[in-house]
Formats: sequence, C-alpha cells, structure tokens
Amino acid sequence: MNRRRSIPLKIGEVTVGGVAPISVQSMTNTDTRDIAATVRQIKELEDCGVEIVRVAVPDMEAAEALSSIKKEIPLPLIADIHFDYRLALASLRAGVDGLRLNPGNIRKREQIAMVVAMARDREIPIRVGVNEGSLPAGFEVAESLSRRMVDAALRQVELMEEMNFNLIKVSLKSFDVPTMIEAYRMIAARIPYPLHLGITEAGLPRTGVIRSAIGMGVLLYEGIGDTIRVSLSAHPCEEVVAAYEILKALGLRQRGATLVSCPTCGRAQIDVLKLAQEVDRYLEEVHKPIKVAVMGCVVNGPGEAKSADVGIAGGKDKGILFKKGRVIKAVPKENILEALKAEIDSISEKGPLSE
Amino acid sequence: MNRRRSIPLKIGEVTVGGVAPISVQSMTNTDTRDIAATVRQIKELEDCGVEIVRVAVPDMEAAEALSSIKKEIPLPLIADIHFDYRLALASLRAGVDGLRLNPGNIRKREQIAMVVAMARDREIPIRVGVNEGSLPAGFEVAESLSRRMVDAALRQVELMEEMNFNLIKVSLKSFDVPTMIEAYRMIAARIPYPLHLGITEAGLPRTGVIRSAIGMGVLLYEGIGDTIRVSLSAHPCEEVVAAYEILKALGLRQRGATLVSCPTCGRAQIDVLKLAQEVDRYLEEVHKPIKVAVMGCVVNGPGEAKSADVGIAGGKDKGILFKKGRVIKAVPKENILEALKAEIDSISEKGPLSE
Repeated sequence: MNRRRSIPLKIGEVTVGGVAPISVQSMTNTDTRDIAATVRQIKELEDCGVEIVRVAVPDMEAAEALSSIKKEIPLPLIADIHFDYRLALASLRAGVDGLRLNPGNIRKREQIAMVVAMARDREIPIRVGVNEGSLPAGFEVAESLSRRMVDAALRQVELMEEMNFNLIKVSLKSFDVPTMIEAYRMIAARIPYPLHLGITEAGLPRTGVIRSAIGMGVLLYEGIGDTIRVSLSAHPCEEVVAAYEILKALGLRQRGATLVSCPTCGRAQIDVLKLAQEVDRYLEEVHKPIKVAVMGCVVNGPGEAKSADVGIAGGKDKGILFKKGRVIKAVPKENILEALKAEIDSISEKGPLSE
Repeated sequence: MNRRRSIPLKIGEVTVGGVAPISVQSMTNTDTRDIAATVRQIKELEDCGVEIVRVAVPDMEAAEALSSIKKEIPLPLIADIHFDYRLALASLRAGVDGLRLNPGNIRKREQIAMVVAMARDREIPIRVGVNEGSLPAGFEVAESLSRRMVDAALRQVELMEEMNFNLIKVSLKSFDVPTMIEAYRMIAARIPYPLHLGITEAGLPRTGVIRSAIGMGVLLYEGIGDTIRVSLSAHPCEEVVAAYEILKALGLRQRGATLVSCPTCGRAQIDVLKLAQEVDRYLEEVHKPIKVAVMGCVVNGPGEAKSADVGIAGGKDKGILFKKGRVIKAVPKENILEALKAEIDSISEKGPLSE
C-alpha cells in the first residue's frame, strides 16, 4: 500500500492528511440545541475512540449552542452546514475547528466568499462535502454519477482556491459502492487535499458496515483516504467500532485486542461460539494490541492461528492452550476459559507483543 | 469491473466460474455423523440462500453418513477432507459433488493420485484449499506468506494437471486481509481455474464481516473470485446474509430488498433508527429487489435517497412519502410506517422496479 500523499491540515489538534494516521470521525445524533445531551454524547464518542466529532447545525440556536458545547469537550468539533451560509459564519464565531459545507445547497459566490474569508482568518478548514443525492444544478451532463460528483467538488475547490483558501478537505459520498469508489479515485488524481471517505445512508449496521467496509476498504487499500466516517443508523459508537475494524483489518491502525476464531464445523470439539463471545467480552477491557484465538479443534487450531499471541483449541478429552502456534499445555475443558483469561492477563500486562 | 474469466466447472447443478453468477457457499457446524441434525441445518441454509454446502469429514463414520445426507438435500454437497485420503475416497463413493483437500496435510503423491483418479472418473471437482496456517513443509523460503501460499497451491495444481485432472478450484485463505488479497491476485494471474474466496477464522460477526467484506470486496471489485464463503463464528446463515450483502454492494448479485437509511443527526425529525429497524424486518419478506429509504429530514431526504423506489422522511409536523426522489404526499407521523408498508406492498406486487 502506497498512500496518496495529501497536504495535511489540522482539525483542532488532529492532523488529517499527509502521513498522519487515518483518523476516525463520527457525528452526534442529538438535537444540537440540547447542549447537555450533545456534550454527553460527545463524551461517549470520545470514550469509544472518536477523534473528530461533527454536529448538525440546522438553525441559529444550534449554531449558538456550539460555543458552550466546545467549552465542555476536548475533541475537535466540526459544524455541518446546509443551505444557510449565516449558520457557517455563526459556527466559526462560536469557535468550531472545522466546517462541512455542501456545494449542492450553498451556491452563491458572495456567500461562499464570506464564509471562506472568515475561515481563512481563523485558519479553520472546510470540507467540501458532495453527496450523490444533493448535487448542485448544472452537473447533469457528465457521463456518470461519479463524474458529476467529481465535477461539482472540483468547481467548489477551484472557487475556494481563487479565494486564496486551501485548508480544504473533500468528500464524495454515495450509497452506491462502485460510484463512491470511482468518484474518490478520480478526484484523488486531481487535487492534493485530504479526502474524507464515507458511504451515505449505508443503513442498519448489519448491511451498512459491509457497504462501508468494501467502499472504504478498496480505496484505503489503494492508499486513498485520510479520515473516515462510517455512517450507520445506530448509536454513533457503532460507527466508531466499525471504522477501527476497517482500519485494523488493513493494518492502518492498531486498537485493542483482535480475536481470531474459527467458524466451527463438524470437527469442533469445544463450543467455539460461546467461548468466542466470552473471550470477546473479556478483550473489551484489554487495550494492548494482542491477538487471541479460539479454535474448534486441536488438529488445525494452533497451526491455523499461528499468528495469535495466545489461543485455545478443543481436543478430544481436554482443551489445549497455545502461544504463537506452540502448544503450551492441556487443560480440562471446563477450565479452558479461565486458563486463557489468565494468559491474556499476563500477556497484556507485559506490554504489546504484536508486531 | 472486468471479471477474470476462469474455466467454469459444475458442483452438482451449480456452475462455478466463467460467467456464472458468483455463488454463495457455507459450511455446516453440526456433527456430520448426526445425519438428522446435519440435514436439518442444510435445509436451514437452503432457506437462507446457500447455493453450495460443505460438511466436515473428520472420520469414516462421517464419510459414510454422506450418502444418507445427500439423499435428503437438493443442494450440492462438498466434503471437507484433512489428513486422510481414504476419507476423500469414501466421500466420493458416497456421492458428494465436490471435494476440498488441504495440500498442507495430504502430501503423498500416490494418495493424491488415488483421490484424483476416482474424482476424474466421477467428474467431481476438487478444491485445492490452502490455508495460511497449514502450509506444507518446504514452503518456508519464499519472501512473503502470500507467496508461500501461492507456491503451495501451484505445486498441488501442477501435480493434478500431471495426473490429467483439471476440475480444479483454488482457495488461499488467510486471517490477514492484505496477505489474502495479495495471494489471490498472484494466483489469479497464474492459473485459469475458478477461485473460491475466503478469510479464515474471521471471528465473530461484528468484526468478521468487516474483514471478509474488505478482503473479498477488493478482489471482487477487480473481477477476481467465482464463489465465496464468509467464515464467521456464528450460525452459518449469518455467513450467507453477509455474503449476499457483499455481492449486492458491488452489484454482482441481486437478492431481496435494500434498505437505505441515514445515520440520523441533529436534523432528524423522525425516529430513524426505530423506523429503519421496523422497515428492515418488514423487508425480510419482500423478495423483489426494490430499494426503500428511511431518512431523518425532509430537506435532504428525498434528494439523498433519489435512487430509492420508495421512501419516507421526517418533516416539521408531518412525515413525507417519496418515490424516486419525488414527494408523493405528506402523512401524519404516526401513520408514516403504515403508509410506507402499503407502498412497499404495491410496488413489490408489481414486479421488480430496480434496474
């Protein structure tokens, strides 16, 4: 994987782009005007690992709530603006760390110029956030939806560049995975700015994480993408868990322990599913990037899970405990979970073992 | 997407490779010797959409159970064999439609020759199923794990070709997503046979579907892969649901309705999450490939979900119902779910609307 090298920018204290780690964003789903509820959810998001948080700003009361919210939270805060440039100005005055504008619904050059001027003075980045479903008029001619999205983003980017502004990030979100992939690939070759990846309206977690994993996975594997948001109809912490799993699967971030477990089959000699679930829960409290395996049978177990720091496998009469593919000892099946937990404790206190 | 064109073969009535639709496999996790339980699970798998089913054959009793199982099921049946070539011979005699052998643990040329000869006589395909963790000895020298896996598969393929056998499928599974992607890319360029994609020991659904979606998604998007199995520590039907979602996300298969729903934010004016869950359940019974949207706000809703055949969005006082991005009518919020269900019924009786 050779990462596309974008011009880095800062959202608060978080660097996005360049060689910075790919950052994880999410968005609150509280009423932004309800300061207490919004701050509470942002703190939940911080606990589950969000690095940049975005809030909707549908009206002036929401914009004015931002300064109180900002005082209560350590995370960088982005204001999501549609339609009304005055909400963007009010958000900037409230001290946000970033803006997201949709070129599909703020179109007047003089309005954009006012927002850009204030953002430039305050050194606040703006995301040009194009969505499949809300393209500005005049982009109906290009041969494909992805091309129309790219054209709309490029026009907005060029407008900002003419205004001497380059603290720009771009997103090109679509529900359709191939459309999204094509759009990001096209723009990645055209501009030097960081890219924020996402699939819009991806749906409920069961299907939404799959659409997001494919779309973002294909791009990240090509080195495209600097910050990601998984959009799900769910508590935003579920978005964050999914985002980190995508990054972990590609070796782009490390975060907590990884569970390796087999799908079980007619060869399984322990209750893999039940054990895997219990181990998974136990690993939630382990913050070292260790790899732990739960395998159904001893014949394949230790070999197939050779990369695991520690693991268990079912045997005929007993279970076995193994480390890095080598069998350490046999353990009565009823004690296997406790034996594994003890090994996890000892490994995770010793410090990170993974490469 | 230009699909790699492999030599098609038949697993029972299902064509794998060539221009055949990418097929969905799963594996039972019952004790294969328990014929009733295994048949019952295979029927569940058939109901949830499996096209090819595999069972573990750990001993001779399991091999002998296969002919009784085969009589009770319409799905093509593959026997998964490790270590003992005699289990492969017994499975062939029992009438299976395919074999999976692991070159890591059946190594003697004369044993492989006996299996290949019987498979050739019966025109039964064999999958050369290499796994990261069970490589045969002698493949320690290559520069990368993916290369070692490819070398092991190629040696086995060449051995079979020397024996005048070419009903071959190949898999190169790994837990590590980049390793798996690299291995399949390499072998795709070297052999003309169909490829069975999978990530091994992917774990519990929450993380396993993400690893699988990325690994398979990257390859399928490049046109690599003819049949897939998502391995999860879960009921095998969860594997099947995930497999179809991967294929649907890339436009490679159609299956049932698709739900588009927004992540909700401070702009949402209806309870998107609750409505989306209810609509999702309702759509389980809809077998036409329609697209249905549940959107939080009316300002973005219909536009962002323009591709949906029908959808709802929250408004200030009422909800709205839209079709293909055009607002049809306003509906009191308490009736919005019923109004949507009525539209779904009318659309899904009229036949497929999606492209």
